[in-house]
Amino acid sequence: MTAFPEIESIAYEGPDSLNPLAFRHYNADEVIEGRTMREHLRFSVVYWHTFRATGADPFGAPTMQRPWDDGSESIENAQNRVRVAFEFFEKLGVPYYAFHDRDIAPEGNSLSESHKNLDAIAAVMKEEQQRTGVKLLWGTANMFSNPRYMHGAATSCNAEVYAYAAAQVKKALEITHELGGEGYTFWGGREGYQCLWNTDLKREQEHLARFLHMAVDYAKQIGFTGPFYIEPKPKEPTKHQYDSDAAACLNFLRQFDLMDHFKLNLETNHATLAGHTMQHELEVAGSAGALGSIDANTGDLLLGWDTDQFPTDIYVTTQCMHSILKYGGLKTGGVNFDAKVRRESFEPIDLFYAHVGGMDAFARGLKIAAAMRADGRLEQMVADRYASWNSGLGAEIEAGQHTLESLEKIMLEKGQAAPNQSGRQELFENVINQYM
Amino acid sequence: MTAFPEIESIAYEGPDSLNPLAFRHYNADEVIEGRTMREHLRFSVVYWHTFRATGADPFGAPTMQRPWDDGSESIENAQNRVRVAFEFFEKLGVPYYAFHDRDIAPEGNSLSESHKNLDAIAAVMKEEQQRTGVKLLWGTANMFSNPRYMHGAATSCNAEVYAYAAAQVKKALEITHELGGEGYTFWGGREGYQCLWNTDLKREQEHLARFLHMAVDYAKQIGFTGPFYIEPKPKEPTKHQYDSDAAACLNFLRQFDLMDHFKLNLETNHATLAGHTMQHELEVAGSAGALGSIDANTGDLLLGWDTDQFPTDIYVTTQCMHSILKYGGLKTGGVNFDAKVRRESFEPIDLFYAHVGGMDAFARGLKIAAAMRADGRLEQMVADRYASWNSGLGAEIEAGQHTLESLEKIMLEKGQAAPNQSGRQELFENVINQYM
Amino acid sequence: MTAFPEIESIAYEGPDSLNPLAFRHYNADEVIEGRTMREHLRFSVVYWHTFRATGADPFGAPTMQRPWDDGSESIENAQNRVRVAFEFFEKLGVPYYAFHDRDIAPEGNSLSESHKNLDAIAAVMKEEQQRTGVKLLWGTANMFSNPRYMHGAATSCNAEVYAYAAAQVKKALEITHELGGEGYTFWGGREGYQCLWNTDLKREQEHLARFLHMAVDYAKQIGFTGPFYIEPKPKEPTKHQYDSDAAACLNFLRQFDLMDHFKLNLETNHATLAGHTMQHELEVAGSAGALGSIDANTGDLLLGWDTDQFPTDIYVTTQCMHSILKYGGLKTGGVNFDAKVRRESFEPIDLFYAHVGGMDAFARGLKIAAAMRADGRLEQMVADRYASWNSGLGAEIEAGQHTLESLEKIMLEKGQAAPNQSGRQELFENVINQYM
Amino acid sequence: MTAFPEIESIAYEGPDSLNPLAFRHYNADEVIEGRTMREHLRFSVVYWHTFRATGADPFGAPTMQRPWDDGSESIENAQNRVRVAFEFFEKLGVPYYAFHDRDIAPEGNSLSESHKNLDAIAAVMKEEQQRTGVKLLWGTANMFSNPRYMHGAATSCNAEVYAYAAAQVKKALEITHELGGEGYTFWGGREGYQCLWNTDLKREQEHLARFLHMAVDYAKQIGFTGPFYIEPKPKEPTKHQYDSDAAACLNFLRQFDLMDHFKLNLETNHATLAGHTMQHELEVAGSAGALGSIDANTGDLLLGWDTDQFPTDIYVTTQCMHSILKYGGLKTGGVNFDAKVRRESFEPIDLFYAHVGGMDAFARGLKIAAAMRADGRLEQMVADRYASWNSGLGAEIEAGQHTLESLEKIMLEKGQAAPNQSGRQELFENVINQYM
Ligand SMILES: [Co+2]
Ligand SMILES: [Co+2]
Ligand SMILES: [Co+2]
Ligand SMILES: [Co+2]
Ligand SMILES: [Co+2]
Ligand SMILES: [Co+2]
Ligand SMILES: [Co+2]
Ligand SMILES: [Co+2]
Repeated sequence: MTAFPEIESIAYEGPDSLNPLAFRHYNADEVIEGRTMREHLRFSVVYWHTFRATGADPFGAPTMQRPWDDGSESIENAQNRVRVAFEFFEKLGVPYYAFHDRDIAPEGNSLSESHKNLDAIAAVMKEEQQRTGVKLLWGTANMFSNPRYMHGAATSCNAEVYAYAAAQVKKALEITHELGGEGYTFWGGREGYQCLWNTDLKREQEHLARFLHMAVDYAKQIGFTGPFYIEPKPKEPTKHQYDSDAAACLNFLRQFDLMDHFKLNLETNHATLAGHTMQHELEVAGSAGALGSIDANTGDLLLGWDTDQFPTDIYVTTQCMHSILKYGGLKTGGVNFDAKVRRESFEPIDLFYAHVGGMDAFARGLKIAAAMRADGRLEQMVADRYASWNSGLGAEIEAGQHTLESLEKIMLEKGQAAPNQSGRQELFENVINQYM
Repeated sequence: MTAFPEIESIAYEGPDSLNPLAFRHYNADEVIEGRTMREHLRFSVVYWHTFRATGADPFGAPTMQRPWDDGSESIENAQNRVRVAFEFFEKLGVPYYAFHDRDIAPEGNSLSESHKNLDAIAAVMKEEQQRTGVKLLWGTANMFSNPRYMHGAATSCNAEVYAYAAAQVKKALEITHELGGEGYTFWGGREGYQCLWNTDLKREQEHLARFLHMAVDYAKQIGFTGPFYIEPKPKEPTKHQYDSDAAACLNFLRQFDLMDHFKLNLETNHATLAGHTMQHELEVAGSAGALGSIDANTGDLLLGWDTDQFPTDIYVTTQCMHSILKYGGLKTGGVNFDAKVRRESFEPIDLFYAHVGGMDAFARGLKIAAAMRADGRLEQMVADRYASWNSGLGAEIEAGQHTLESLEKIMLEKGQAAPNQSGRQELFENVINQYM
Repeated sequence: MTAFPEIESIAYEGPDSLNPLAFRHYNADEVIEGRTMREHLRFSVVYWHTFRATGADPFGAPTMQRPWDDGSESIENAQNRVRVAFEFFEKLGVPYYAFHDRDIAPEGNSLSESHKNLDAIAAVMKEEQQRTGVKLLWGTANMFSNPRYMHGAATSCNAEVYAYAAAQVKKALEITHELGGEGYTFWGGREGYQCLWNTDLKREQEHLARFLHMAVDYAKQIGFTGPFYIEPKPKEPTKHQYDSDAAACLNFLRQFDLMDHFKLNLETNHATLAGHTMQHELEVAGSAGALGSIDANTGDLLLGWDTDQFPTDIYVTTQCMHSILKYGGLKTGGVNFDAKVRRESFEPIDLFYAHVGGMDAFARGLKIAAAMRADGRLEQMVADRYASWNSGLGAEIEAGQHTLESLEKIMLEKGQAAPNQSGRQELFENVINQYM
Repeated sequence: MTAFPEIESIAYEGPDSLNPLAFRHYNADEVIEGRTMREHLRFSVVYWHTFRATGADPFGAPTMQRPWDDGSESIENAQNRVRVAFEFFEKLGVPYYAFHDRDIAPEGNSLSESHKNLDAIAAVMKEEQQRTGVKLLWGTANMFSNPRYMHGAATSCNAEVYAYAAAQVKKALEITHELGGEGYTFWGGREGYQCLWNTDLKREQEHLARFLHMAVDYAKQIGFTGPFYIEPKPKEPTKHQYDSDAAACLNFLRQFDLMDHFKLNLETNHATLAGHTMQHELEVAGSAGALGSIDANTGDLLLGWDTDQFPTDIYVTTQCMHSILKYGGLKTGGVNFDAKVRRESFEPIDLFYAHVGGMDAFARGLKIAAAMRADGRLEQMVADRYASWNSGLGAEIEAGQHTLESLEKIMLEKGQAAPNQSGRQELFENVINQYM
């Protein structure tokens, strides 16, 4: 039995293909900078949007046609859904997927029942992983959908909710480890506030730090060595999410001595909601040695919420892949499509169109970024701008040989600084277009 | 000779006064929570907007009528302007002011001439400070207006520009120290980027860190013990300013081991440009022990640039004063009006209207915040929300007595967390209105 | 049987009351400018948020405790809910309410069944209206929640969906008329687009215009004389809603000859999502003779979606009431609380806190606005600014006595225009604060 | 003597060229859809940014190196600047330019002197136009820079300022006509408000309407037949500009019976400041028969002010050219680079880089849009979505043959509407990428 009978598998047909169910750029085995595209891109499909999204929005009811799903919360339905998901992963040709605990298995009437449900589904996932070779990029726990988490999980004003969340993370870590997950992600969910007047921000953040330390300790205990990720997002569902952007996350990790255990999982739409470009967030994380993984999607910069659209803008995918290559490539992380088809794109085939388009956009970004790097013109233009720092005064300053006094002495003699060079922003932008 | 002949001095006339040149709320000697309003609010006027702003904007020419200013860059004009400024400070009744080096004295043809100019003006300021008792809240160096700083100062790609900036900061620190300044502020100016493609973000931030360390070292050397402040702002003039918000600044300070020497100078309009409320930034800084001073103004939340308007919204001034009282009050910092009269408010008298209104709005905010604290209803409502953390499981967790395992064990037994309480956001907001 | 046993009825206790379940400002029978506060404010509760909102959001499940509601789609449950609603209206003391067809009655399996369901509920509403004297401010049809409307209703690419919507509006108009509704509202729902590439904007807008004309014609036919309202909103649920702001709606109404039949229903949160203040939208509508009614709520200006929060900012409520008084007061319209309690405010009592706070904020705004008007200082300051238009050259221009040539002639002689006066924005803002 | 000795003229070298001073896509004589690229694109350079921008910004002094300009306000300098400008136009190969009166000639001490100055410069422009064949796309009057216009021009509260503005427009119209200008533009400048409390919005808009009617009358009188354009912009310099977006302008034009005389001049950065895509504004204007001309630039969607950057994003240029082709191409309008080089791009050569990049981006957009149209796949996909409107019920509705009653009757019988088709947004976006 197949859920997608009309699809055999998505093949690479090259740039001239007009087949919307073929890759024009993603050629998994093609080698770029010494690695295959598969190894560079480490594509991952998300279980939540792709297999659990219903098309409901705050103004309307579900729309998605998912004929394989009976809509029930039964274990059988959940298990069957896993098999459909792996059929999708296989036909699409992605090496990874990611999930929340509550995506894959129904929440039970008690914590122990929920744990049991998870085990029942994880067993099928393991089978399917072995059958297909598709692997788990990272796991995570949903600590925001259930009403118990209305005030947050690790930052809840309700201590028992915190304890419940701890139990949930413990189990999710175990499942992730059992399935060979290469990482574990914390997205803040409802860790933040709706209203500062009723919130003790300092106490909540200290609770959160303790929670993450407990997770680190337990990972060590069970031998889970994959990195933890924090995924920044500034708002939604809470008015302010504590993990608002890359800098806020790094500040938190530094304050609470967690930098050794966490990297960032950056999402394009979250970057722009925070008022930053994705390229900015990648540079902030990369320059701090904390670039872990990316959630590949796009927002609409004229809208103020997380639209989680599939990425197709090759300027943005080029920026992503350029920064990723610059910081050494994705290690345990991946290009994870945290993206959902529009509510109006309700047919199963739309899931294929969407992922194929996103994968091709990233493959094209990778090829363009690699071409830039091979060519070196752009990098040379940047290097030229900073030439004054490579010798003489600049090099001395970098070597720590100067003070305000010694610099004042030099400049009092010179009277004026050497002239600046044009920043050439327009030329830079034109050169980028030469690669497009 | 007087620049403001029509004004004797701004007096307190009480809430019923309709005199727009009298205070209705700011009663300097009135004692609140054991300190006078003067001591709580530590009002400060900024030299740049109030005595140097011309009313020019990107679309139009200067409008301001400043009959005492001959428009020249002469030392005499600059010295005379100082005397006018102190007349204004006195008549307004503020205890503090703040300046950039280039606000007070004209830039010379060489660094040494600029230094000499500064000395000539600082001498008059010292006289005026002694004559009036008005003190210097903080000094700073303008490292963004001169074209040499087009690519930044401490983050310039031009090493000599960096050296020049170092010399400028050295002198500004000396002048600040000489004038008894209680702090020294770094606002990022053009420390940021216009375009990531032509920028080496990591190298620039390392340069900046070294620069700040040199300033710390030199302060120690000359005996300047007042705190340094960093003032966050996310954008403008550069597309991205490195010191984008409180969290980004704290992250930077932690990364480069500068937390002991810096506090934050928070500005309302910069907070909102970064997508945060001022209350949020105050809580972030306060909870990190880094709340230093505030730049009191307001932006227009529907506009995307720094309008630096005078603050009149008593909800916002109440929030400011509530957080300030909560974190122990302003020590070396102040309520510094980094605000400018609108381009169309071009008469000298508008400077009085604007400051009187801003001072009154903050005085009213102080009285409201103190009433809230005296009353305690709001604080009690908050405390009630977190009651579960004060004993039992919550207290054990805070005491570090739990792990994921021990918490799972507890929750497996309980099966479900204790019910949540309503967040009561609407009630909180209504109670706030009871104090207005 | 009562749904709110703990509430007798909300009484006016005056400004010193600390009782959060009493009015401090809304004194229904108090006369202001010759009318009672009840007549000025014409408060209205919305059925959708207050009786149908579940607390679900895109990230989480329902939270609301509504013990009277069995959660079913039965007619009995719907009828019982009506009785609870009227108990709420009565105890709160509001004279009006508003609803969508699908709020009050369950959608049936066919159009005719849906019609029948509506009739069954409307009968109870009519009884309750008669029993309590609470009246219907306006009715409307929900043409956005059902998946059939995914591509819009009157702008759907599916002609049968358009026809279905027409049938639904016909019935909603009839019910509204039957219940003595004083108006009928069109909020665009999904009339807009997600993506311009797949959209024929011109054709869709023409369809919409025809749809509205059909509604106008049918209203005439059945004797419904109350005005139609269009409610502007710029985005959400679609990426662009055709009725994006007041100006866009007026443009549409003028283009398609609908100005005689429609007024605007302005919502604060929709105004700010469109980048405007509510005061702006009120002035745009008022100056065009199209100010019909308001949806009273507030958004969070730092968030990009429609939070529909209860209004408590007295600056904003003052602006609303000032414009409303200026344009002759609400006639058929009202102050309609299109606002919902936060997801975390899940108890029934929170509905009371929220509405009481919102009503008091508007009552206070009314009193402040009336005081401003009685006093006249502000209006005089405005009049002074435009004095040059009341006689001489200005009056001649307004009278149509000039051309470019005649004006050039005058100004060539004068050489320069008379000096401007200061705009005094800061003084205006301070004077506003004198009334707060 | 030449201002740009290093440049001969910008040549077309084809897509493989790496020469940043050559066109890779703009091949003026290449024929597309029956017209040359020159005829399609009608490129225009703006005098203000390119020859008058100094690089000053609200935080810093001028930076631009313009060796030909002595910085004086002399007539000689202004005349020489004209010659340099035409050298630039020629070498760049653009057929058009645009100016404000005050860009080209210094403002005099009186209106008559300003008129005289204008004549002196216009004479040189006429010579240069004849010498080079470069033509005037449109003229306009700067009614926002001089302090007299602080409160607006046609919406000033000062009637003499209004009269002065009228005189200025009269002269600018005459000069535009004398130079064969193909249109005349009104950009709102300071026609708007900073603060609603001190503003009589209705009276100001009526004044503006009268002003535009006077301009229309005078144009008729002197035989100027080119269209008038209004250029929408939502904010900056005023907090709210009356001409905030395309819909607001159309509403105003309809209200005051000006639709026959005005078309819109749409600017990308103004569209996005208003919360719209440029494609949206093009469709709004185009579908209303009011698409006149475009100001080609780009903003930074994460910044809240008008950055007026040069356009390089080929998705956006494709959208522009697709809508322009769809609505019949530019007639009197052009692709006018209302764009300025960054403050840090201070060398004359940056002006060439910037314009070459922008022209190439638009040429590429034209080629892509034409390919889409030739191919027809996209258009077919759109047509398929609306198929139900082409016959049967849809066609009847469009023909005006239905009422709410007749449609209800049909749908009561059917019971339910025909199923919807997937909106296929992801597929649409992927197909777009096939053309990139
Ligand atoms: Co994500
Ligand atoms: Co997201
Ligand atoms: Co500041
Ligand atoms: Co500021
Ligand atoms: Co509404
Ligand atoms: Co709303
Ligand atoms: Co423009
Ligand atoms: Co612009």
